[in-house]
Amino acid sequence: MPGAAPKGPPPEPVTRILAAYAATAPVEQLPANVRKEATRTLLNWVGCAVGGSQQGAPTRAVAALKAFSGPAQASLFGRRERLDVLNAALINGISSHVLDYDDTHLKTIIHPAGPVASALTAFAEYRPVSGAEFMNALVLGCEIECRMGNSVFPEHYAMGWHITGTTGVFGAAAAIGRLLKLDERQMTWALGIAASQPVGLKVQFGSDTKSFHPGKAAQNGLLAALLAQQGYTASEVAIEGFDGWGQAASSRHDWREVTQGLGQRYEAALNTYKPFACGIVAHPAIDAAIQLREANQLQPAQIKAVALKVHPLVLNLMGKTEPGIGLEGKFSVFHAVAAALVTGRGGEQAFTDKAVADPTIVSVRQRVTAVIDPAIKADQVDMTILLTDGRTVHQFIEHAVGSQDHPMSDRQLEDKFAGLTEDILPASRTRRLKELCWDVWSLKDAGDILRAGAAL
Amino acid sequence: MPGAAPKGPPPEPVTRILAAYAATAPVEQLPANVRKEATRTLLNWVGCAVGGSQQGAPTRAVAALKAFSGPAQASLFGRRERLDVLNAALINGISSHVLDYDDTHLKTIIHPAGPVASALTAFAEYRPVSGAEFMNALVLGCEIECRMGNSVFPEHYAMGWHITGTTGVFGAAAAIGRLLKLDERQMTWALGIAASQPVGLKVQFGSDTKSFHPGKAAQNGLLAALLAQQGYTASEVAIEGFDGWGQAASSRHDWREVTQGLGQRYEAALNTYKPFACGIVAHPAIDAAIQLREANQLQPAQIKAVALKVHPLVLNLMGKTEPGIGLEGKFSVFHAVAAALVTGRGGEQAFTDKAVADPTIVSVRQRVTAVIDPAIKADQVDMTILLTDGRTVHQFIEHAVGSQDHPMSDRQLEDKFAGLTEDILPASRTRRLKELCWDVWSLKDAGDILRAGAAL
Repeated sequence: MPGAAPKGPPPEPVTRILAAYAATAPVEQLPANVRKEATRTLLNWVGCAVGGSQQGAPTRAVAALKAFSGPAQASLFGRRERLDVLNAALINGISSHVLDYDDTHLKTIIHPAGPVASALTAFAEYRPVSGAEFMNALVLGCEIECRMGNSVFPEHYAMGWHITGTTGVFGAAAAIGRLLKLDERQMTWALGIAASQPVGLKVQFGSDTKSFHPGKAAQNGLLAALLAQQGYTASEVAIEGFDGWGQAASSRHDWREVTQGLGQRYEAALNTYKPFACGIVAHPAIDAAIQLREANQLQPAQIKAVALKVHPLVLNLMGKTEPGIGLEGKFSVFHAVAAALVTGRGGEQAFTDKAVADPTIVSVRQRVTAVIDPAIKADQVDMTILLTDGRTVHQFIEHAVGSQDHPMSDRQLEDKFAGLTEDILPASRTRRLKELCWDVWSLKDAGDILRAGAAL
Repeated sequence: MPGAAPKGPPPEPVTRILAAYAATAPVEQLPANVRKEATRTLLNWVGCAVGGSQQGAPTRAVAALKAFSGPAQASLFGRRERLDVLNAALINGISSHVLDYDDTHLKTIIHPAGPVASALTAFAEYRPVSGAEFMNALVLGCEIECRMGNSVFPEHYAMGWHITGTTGVFGAAAAIGRLLKLDERQMTWALGIAASQPVGLKVQFGSDTKSFHPGKAAQNGLLAALLAQQGYTASEVAIEGFDGWGQAASSRHDWREVTQGLGQRYEAALNTYKPFACGIVAHPAIDAAIQLREANQLQPAQIKAVALKVHPLVLNLMGKTEPGIGLEGKFSVFHAVAAALVTGRGGEQAFTDKAVADPTIVSVRQRVTAVIDPAIKADQVDMTILLTDGRTVHQFIEHAVGSQDHPMSDRQLEDKFAGLTEDILPASRTRRLKELCWDVWSLKDAGDILRAGAAL
């Protein structure tokens, strides 16, 4: 405003601060717990990418793009085709998210690895890079992605944006920019070009386009870094500036979430993994169902009514009462609870077309009701089951398995990895892939991971 | 909301209505004036794409992508490289917008052709299609793009979005979907996948990323159509639904702008073209200068003083008095007027480094003064030239050439086309390209256009 006195301190150069961090933070700086969590992130993500690779979404996307792909530079997890780096990143990103089984940064509901690791694995197969450089880039990418998410959550998410795709572009651009050794100015451009390419709307949940989001974010971020390397310019205040990303994409932003404590505290270390193959908001309910089933040896015929008290997001995101196909089942807490009560499982097998149509599961599903209780936190649930003999059984979940306070163990992650990969890759290949992930920090060539994850 | 009574009529299925229109509107339906304006749109856009092809932005983008491109399926306007369809669409889109000289839908400030024609020309070179089919797809694409813009303008634009890239994805998806003969359901998915991929922030203005926006919108829309053809699903209410595009990308939307009068009134027929290669606010002054020069056979030495009465925005946006390089000349109404008086032109040649340093132009420039007159509207100017013999000549411009009320003539478009292409393509090629554009509706193979526009 002409004549208005400036108020407060000058605005922070958010884009430049992030760029400097992405370009220069030394790999030696990473604390052991961050390195360890990043390794678990990789293992979990690779399992998901292999596990999803035969699904319709990646299969259709490969069919659409094969004729246009460049040289066979990069493999596809679980598949035989090889595509150029940019297209491989897209497909692997789709595969890794299509089961809705990948990692979650609980503060923002971002799935951090998808956009970043999809770009990194494809690029690393094309241009050799050590495991330590690769993992440092993975951490930086996930860190930037989650911090961008923190700065705009929940308003940005509530507006309709699928936050994994909108913030993932920044993570992928930073990670690939790091491998390309972009200088700070180029990295600023990479983040700037990323800002112009958000991907993803929540309206797509339940369709193939949900899993498209992390894949396209990976591809867009990769493109941003490649362009910046050639001196392709962008606004150097693209994130925080007038008419920039923050203004356009969110009704609120707190840039301190992005810039404060960089290199000191790590959002990337807060990653969690899903024990169940559906939206995380339903995990407490599945956890409760499995526990009640086991503790009481419940049979479906005994179940008269299942009453849930849930966090508001559960019905917002997973409120489908009559899912028709497996994918829709992933957006139905009613189905998820019924499948868990009937089968004792919450993995991929609980969300097939067959499971959703199973008469026993359908019958239990119709007896499940849920009410919102403002006292219930996101990783909690209160479940009461009325039995046909008039008894009730009750379970309150304080922290669902897989949550921040009750993480999956390494062994549980390995079991999940095995379950995801065993039907797709030969056992020897699965074993090697798992070992490469655990040993990634000392690998000479991180490209081995994607090569090992491809189908023969 | 549970329990809330539904209010008003049920919401319109916007995405499906648009998809049905894009998939089925017959080419015979187009009125003659729409066909004619579309032809002019094509000619103007092709000239811009050739004219911008040697700039830094497309050159850097080609350097970044060459190693990753697929088969040599499509040409690049004004260049020798051939890339896969998706990458060619990106590069041609960048070239066509980099001079800021392409077409404008004045109600929304959308540059309609960029995203749509970039996708179409590349695809048509790869998969032969008649000129009539090609042009019908161009009209449908521009129509959908501009209607989407109308539905959210100006709020969406004010939020920071570069509306050409955000709405252009829909236009490109619909146009390519049409060439692919997608059925209505597939077209719904194509528009849905497009909705998840908006491109562009206004913060990028002044950097290479501004011209990236129409190129990336073309590429994203193309991808959406290719995926949809393979059955890749998306939300069928992606535009209007809860957590959809309208909710996320704009604080207001009026879907009647999208759905009413489809096939009856055509936004695509309202396209306009810039006669001069600089900010539109200086166009009235350049128009006046050229008219006075021609009417009076003015020679530079005759000009003693040039006095302008201008709209306030002219000095706000183009008030540079001493431009040092060509790009600065684009922000100097003084230079623009001087160049027009000396050369009779306001095209790209008027804003080169050489033109800005030309002693004759500099000398005239120093004799140009401008005052703000609140009575002067944005497309008006009042110019008085005092001659060395004591006479004065005067011109008031009511509506500058290129405005809605005073469109460029076909002849003026041809002159602009010549100015844009003559330094880049041989004269015989330029002539052929111009003829192909004028004759496009009767071409057997619309791919000839891009083939003819490539450098030899």
